[in-house]
Amino acid sequence: MNGKPLVSIVSAGLSKFGKLDGMYGREIFAEAAKEAYDRCPNLNPKKDIKALFVGHMGEAYEHQGHTGATVADWAGLLHVPATRTEAACASSGAALRVAIQAVLSGLSDVVMVGGVEKMTHRSTAEVTEYLAMASDFPYEQWQGMTFPGLYALMATAHMHDYGTAEKDLAMVAVKNHYHGSMNPKAHIQKEITLETAMTSRVVAWPLKLYDCSLITDGASCLILTKPELAKKYTDMPVNIVGSGQASDAIGLYERESLTSLAAAKIAAKQAYDMAGVKPEDVNVAEVHDCFTIAEIIAYEDLGFCKLGEGGRIVENGETRLGGRIPVNTSGGLKSKGHPVGATGTAQAYEMYLQLTGQADRRQVIGAKIGLTHNVGGSGATATVHIYRRD
Amino acid sequence: MNGKPLVSIVSAGLSKFGKLDGMYGREIFAEAAKEAYDRCPNLNPKKDIKALFVGHMGEAYEHQGHTGATVADWAGLLHVPATRTEAACASSGAALRVAIQAVLSGLSDVVMVGGVEKMTHRSTAEVTEYLAMASDFPYEQWQGMTFPGLYALMATAHMHDYGTAEKDLAMVAVKNHYHGSMNPKAHIQKEITLETAMTSRVVAWPLKLYDCSLITDGASCLILTKPELAKKYTDMPVNIVGSGQASDAIGLYERESLTSLAAAKIAAKQAYDMAGVKPEDVNVAEVHDCFTIAEIIAYEDLGFCKLGEGGRIVENGETRLGGRIPVNTSGGLKSKGHPVGATGTAQAYEMYLQLTGQADRRQVIGAKIGLTHNVGGSGATATVHIYRRD
Repeated sequence: MNGKPLVSIVSAGLSKFGKLDGMYGREIFAEAAKEAYDRCPNLNPKKDIKALFVGHMGEAYEHQGHTGATVADWAGLLHVPATRTEAACASSGAALRVAIQAVLSGLSDVVMVGGVEKMTHRSTAEVTEYLAMASDFPYEQWQGMTFPGLYALMATAHMHDYGTAEKDLAMVAVKNHYHGSMNPKAHIQKEITLETAMTSRVVAWPLKLYDCSLITDGASCLILTKPELAKKYTDMPVNIVGSGQASDAIGLYERESLTSLAAAKIAAKQAYDMAGVKPEDVNVAEVHDCFTIAEIIAYEDLGFCKLGEGGRIVENGETRLGGRIPVNTSGGLKSKGHPVGATGTAQAYEMYLQLTGQADRRQVIGAKIGLTHNVGGSGATATVHIYRRD
Repeated sequence: MNGKPLVSIVSAGLSKFGKLDGMYGREIFAEAAKEAYDRCPNLNPKKDIKALFVGHMGEAYEHQGHTGATVADWAGLLHVPATRTEAACASSGAALRVAIQAVLSGLSDVVMVGGVEKMTHRSTAEVTEYLAMASDFPYEQWQGMTFPGLYALMATAHMHDYGTAEKDLAMVAVKNHYHGSMNPKAHIQKEITLETAMTSRVVAWPLKLYDCSLITDGASCLILTKPELAKKYTDMPVNIVGSGQASDAIGLYERESLTSLAAAKIAAKQAYDMAGVKPEDVNVAEVHDCFTIAEIIAYEDLGFCKLGEGGRIVENGETRLGGRIPVNTSGGLKSKGHPVGATGTAQAYEMYLQLTGQADRRQVIGAKIGLTHNVGGSGATATVHIYRRD
């Protein structure tokens, strides 16, 4: 707990997550921005915000690129420099790191960072194809591989190496739907039983329907500033005290391990070291549960348990609200939903709520240190950030 | 000339620009990276480079997103944090600004920044469609508008307001093909006559074939570091002393002017102010000549001449090699080519050559201060950077 704050989050916004018919992505982003502005009456957005960074994964969904300038205008920030970042499903985790650097650089005192994706107007086949662009074209896409298949390979390897069971995967879904049932902005706000998860149809064995995250529309954003300016905007800043990012080979077949993400481990080490925090210090975390196996691997990569014990700690309830380290209190990608470009900063939004005591029925009492873990593709990008309420 | 250096360019690389059959974008990027590494034997890429930012406009071309991680691996930078930026044709201009901030932030001492696009394997109709994603979907694309049409509107407005003639536009093409004829990496390395340009087929009146930039494959990159570390890597650093970026409404129809880009004017003012440089101090510039009219407007937005006089200064030869302020000595987008994501840092590559006296037959003798101007879409993004050899 000796990490110097890099930046302070002084406000945050999240659109409703779900099937938002009739809205363009830019309008959904504006909804998130409005919440951030409403929470922060001392902020004059057009005057104070000096840069905007927005994670957006796919221009295919709306046949629309140039997302930075577009959402800047819709968020009331005409003429503000605005840049889209893309790192697959870690697009806004990467935007967050870029935004932190922008503040630290001294070029931009106050920065908006967020993410957006509009997906549900497309068919499942289209979405599957567009998402696949985050995997390797010649050696994965071209062979017919899609993301459920890639994560199924990781799941079967984990089962083989560590005895992880289909039930362990299902328990992640049960927990995250329980958490999501308490999040009024979640895409699906209902609990499910273990039986529902276990008997749902197979998508790519051992992954069943309830092992997969949701195709969702949504947007998220944060307002960041220098720690010394934070009090101008809020009495309850949340400081970001650690930031890590790493890459890996894009193709799963090229990796040294199928059961651990090297990029996530490297990013986590950077973030922990920078923050002066150990895994056991973390009170609440949002991890990238694009598939249930991904959450189990995340526990291990982040040091929340030993290698191979991810299935056990979810079965024991250690990562459930009230447990040792509640994970994905928002419902995660599994129940809150996964508008891919928006996910990284949506995780940070949950940290903002948790560390300022605004998480209502899903509040982790006394949470002081939080962590977010955002993964792109099958692990070729990972970002980890650590948050602290001082 | 009192601007403090923000960062130093210690090396730079450019692939051949052209129709690079049988190469993936990642391989083209590796070619640019190799040149940058070869120029800088003191650099240990894997050990020294702490972050990579890559401008890449369209995942549709190769059905491949997640470009950051992909090119990191191909450039020998496995596990280095890598993020793609997209701001239409200003994608790597935006990457450059993000990379400057990364160095200034103190989080990354040495950074690679570049851009890449593989386009020529697609049909002209496909490329036109993919490029159009940088314009507004509901009010431009949906109406059948494409970029030649948008720039034709700007050209006719400029002709109406200032008496600019079709011949002025053609003179830009003649000049840039002359410059490109001396660039061994240019896509088209031959001079053209005024008659060739004037009598080429109409694409979108008044724009003819020779008023349009090229569909090209290519990649570019720079190695940046803190000024105080530059001498470790080179005896000839080029300092970046000004950086500006701004946005505008994505739709041309929403702008206050059709004949001037507000984003470019704002970005230029920021960069000039930061650098302590005036337009008349600039010795050489690369501007965004996606269409010939765009170069004429750039002269005016950058203060190289008064409003409405852009046509006159190209006719007078003021922007030709040997003139008052040579513009697009590389051949520009018009003759060197326009692999869209690569263009911003390819402009910076030309500045690196010019300010270190390595531009061979197209050298601007004694050039000390350079400027690059990179525009996204019809002007919803613009970045301006100023370079100085100290």
